[in-house]
Amino acid sequence: MKIILLSGGEGKRLFPLSNSVRSKQFLRVLQSPEGCAESMLQRVVRQIRQSMPQCELVIATAQAQRGMIERQVGRDAAIVTEPSRRDTFPAIALASTFLASEQNCSRDEVVVVMPCDAYTDKGYFATVKRMAQAVENNAAQLVLMGIKPTYASTKFGYVLPVANGAKDILAVERFTEKPDEVRAAQFIARGAMWNGGVFAFRLGYITDIVERYTGGMSFGQLRAKYDILPKISFDYEVAEKAASVAAVPFEGMWKDLGTWNALAQELPRQISGYALADEDCDNTTVVNELGIPVLCLGAKNMIVAAAADGILVCDKAASEHIKDCVAKIAPQHDMYREFEWGSRRVLEYRPLTAGRYAVTSAINIAAGYEAAAAEDDRADITWTVVEGTGVVTSPDKCTAVAAGCVVKFEQHRRYTVRAEQNLQIIEVAITSSGEA
Amino acid sequence: MKIILLSGGEGKRLFPLSNSVRSKQFLRVLQSPEGCAESMLQRVVRQIRQSMPQCELVIATAQAQRGMIERQVGRDAAIVTEPSRRDTFPAIALASTFLASEQNCSRDEVVVVMPCDAYTDKGYFATVKRMAQAVENNAAQLVLMGIKPTYASTKFGYVLPVANGAKDILAVERFTEKPDEVRAAQFIARGAMWNGGVFAFRLGYITDIVERYTGGMSFGQLRAKYDILPKISFDYEVAEKAASVAAVPFEGMWKDLGTWNALAQELPRQISGYALADEDCDNTTVVNELGIPVLCLGAKNMIVAAAADGILVCDKAASEHIKDCVAKIAPQHDMYREFEWGSRRVLEYRPLTAGRYAVTSAINIAAGYEAAAAEDDRADITWTVVEGTGVVTSPDKCTAVAAGCVVKFEQHRRYTVRAEQNLQIIEVAITSSGEA
Repeated sequence: MKIILLSGGEGKRLFPLSNSVRSKQFLRVLQSPEGCAESMLQRVVRQIRQSMPQCELVIATAQAQRGMIERQVGRDAAIVTEPSRRDTFPAIALASTFLASEQNCSRDEVVVVMPCDAYTDKGYFATVKRMAQAVENNAAQLVLMGIKPTYASTKFGYVLPVANGAKDILAVERFTEKPDEVRAAQFIARGAMWNGGVFAFRLGYITDIVERYTGGMSFGQLRAKYDILPKISFDYEVAEKAASVAAVPFEGMWKDLGTWNALAQELPRQISGYALADEDCDNTTVVNELGIPVLCLGAKNMIVAAAADGILVCDKAASEHIKDCVAKIAPQHDMYREFEWGSRRVLEYRPLTAGRYAVTSAINIAAGYEAAAAEDDRADITWTVVEGTGVVTSPDKCTAVAAGCVVKFEQHRRYTVRAEQNLQIIEVAITSSGEA
Repeated sequence: MKIILLSGGEGKRLFPLSNSVRSKQFLRVLQSPEGCAESMLQRVVRQIRQSMPQCELVIATAQAQRGMIERQVGRDAAIVTEPSRRDTFPAIALASTFLASEQNCSRDEVVVVMPCDAYTDKGYFATVKRMAQAVENNAAQLVLMGIKPTYASTKFGYVLPVANGAKDILAVERFTEKPDEVRAAQFIARGAMWNGGVFAFRLGYITDIVERYTGGMSFGQLRAKYDILPKISFDYEVAEKAASVAAVPFEGMWKDLGTWNALAQELPRQISGYALADEDCDNTTVVNELGIPVLCLGAKNMIVAAAADGILVCDKAASEHIKDCVAKIAPQHDMYREFEWGSRRVLEYRPLTAGRYAVTSAINIAAGYEAAAAEDDRADITWTVVEGTGVVTSPDKCTAVAAGCVVKFEQHRRYTVRAEQNLQIIEVAITSSGEA
């Protein structure tokens, strides 16, 4: 059995913790059973490993998120990156082609697709196993997870089971993506469930659909001609059209921590980071990732969040509107990024004369890792090493560096740096383009 | 006529804009009649220049505030710095001795002492002129400004005029500093006024009192032996004991912008800096001095302020409690400082191993000014010049610098830097002491 985890998202709703590469699933704001900080992605991978230790994982994502994923889940999951962002059908098609042509999986292999950001418990993964079993038993070509609805949401697809059918594996009469509120209420009255975005099928079922577009391309060929696939969701392209669909119901904990209001309820601490809230604060959540203090007095029902990308002060009831406002104000450049080798945080982004910028960043490179340095050919770049040891390599020499060393990079040359002990570096880049 | 402006204060109440050197009077948050940003100090100096163009100014302050004052009001005011902070009587005594022994003022010279942070209008300065005239006419030895009280405050001194006296210059029967609320109400019922902290007298009146402690020291002697003066306010040491006191009443605008709630009412814009407040925000003031966006949604009656020293989210009604909370959370080091030659803003203060710190700062040096560089002998200091031109001078050489230049300072040597065009520098200091 293979699991394809879908990791996407733009990360505007959880501003300023999230940004265009650091989507909500990467935020280490939850807590593992051992009491460590854990992201939604790390949580779901841990839960999969506990429930289904034998299954193999493929994470389907955008190129920009590869480093973040490698850093958070290590290398025991395969990562398939889309060359461009095209929606869930192409992403699942590419990952399925990867399984078929790169991992030589058989057409009969059972594959489960699931989102990487559902906040759930053990029962959810037990349901996933029942779904895989249903495919194995040929209950249907496509098996999906039906979530018991709590209100007539217009954000979900609805799965209408055949009346008076079996209760554990439901034959699906109809699948409808995001109906209006009236129709949603009608569906619920008839016993419909939300589509939880979890799908199980045999690999050949999907590769047959993909081949209708590709004529049978290999993974490499498809990745190079990715635009050949239509920009459409899996729900519309596959689930709505499927002839043979069953649903396995799930009634346990299932939350989307996609708004600050929802996320705040699951945080292990209501005040985290360098922050103080006085006793007149009420139902207020403070998350501070900056090195300067946040002081809250008399705040009621508020989210206060500070990070490299900005500062949010938001009534919890208004947290659904953050996305639209962020689009109006957020900077074009992400201030915090994680990579497999470490992280980069912009401390200051300063416009200069003549369209140039000075970008001051704090870079961390983990011991044993290597990173490309001074990748922007158009920038004058200086590093001051403040902690750790490592080696900077240019085409013609290697230079050992340690705390106190200053490295000035020459333009138009390739450099790499390898950390022996964790390296902490302050970089100053003077650029003409706004990109560091 | 001489004016002694008292500039003190610690700046915790207006966190994070204010800090231990950047007290409230230095915040450029007001607006001049020409629409430029203006501090309380700049405002009161401008008002004095307009009302009393001939008078000479002495600013009495702490050494740490000298650079900030020189930067804001230029060099046309004399600055007298206290060697240590001792309260208003010693500060006025030192400035008076400066007038007598350094500026050779006569004993008959009329001196007016006033705070630098009263938010007032023209009528206030007309009243100051009437006070000086009253001293000139020998109406009393000490003339103070009586402010019409609006409530039984316990924060002010009360001036009780003789019943049935003149209405323009009131003979004072009694002066009482900060009574309790019951007595304050009794005073108000009997026609008492608040002491506005403005005093007029002949120079000899004060120097006689000072000589009782000093035996007749020169300014230089007194500054060297400043501890000889008691740590007491001018109100207790002089006003309460004075035999001949008159008051000139003032009923115009007179505000203390010492809390965020009071300051917010006088700001020219309710949203300033890189910030967005949605239309559900109400009676909310946002001030952002940082380069990252502040986003406010649905905030009611709040102050949101972000600056190098921290972030404040405060119910306006709670702004009087800020000072106590800041004492619990604020860093020991000021993140933003102004000097005559420019400014220094800490971008990141990072603890390292072995008790060391890395402090990354943005330094601006104004064209034509010279600053000492790399003053901390215990730190490894690197500069990257990002804009402007200048000359760095060490004991044995001069080096021209421009954008892109990197300067690594050797420890235990003295350097100065002179800006030809405005210099913008990113400094990285690695220190073992926590001080950069």
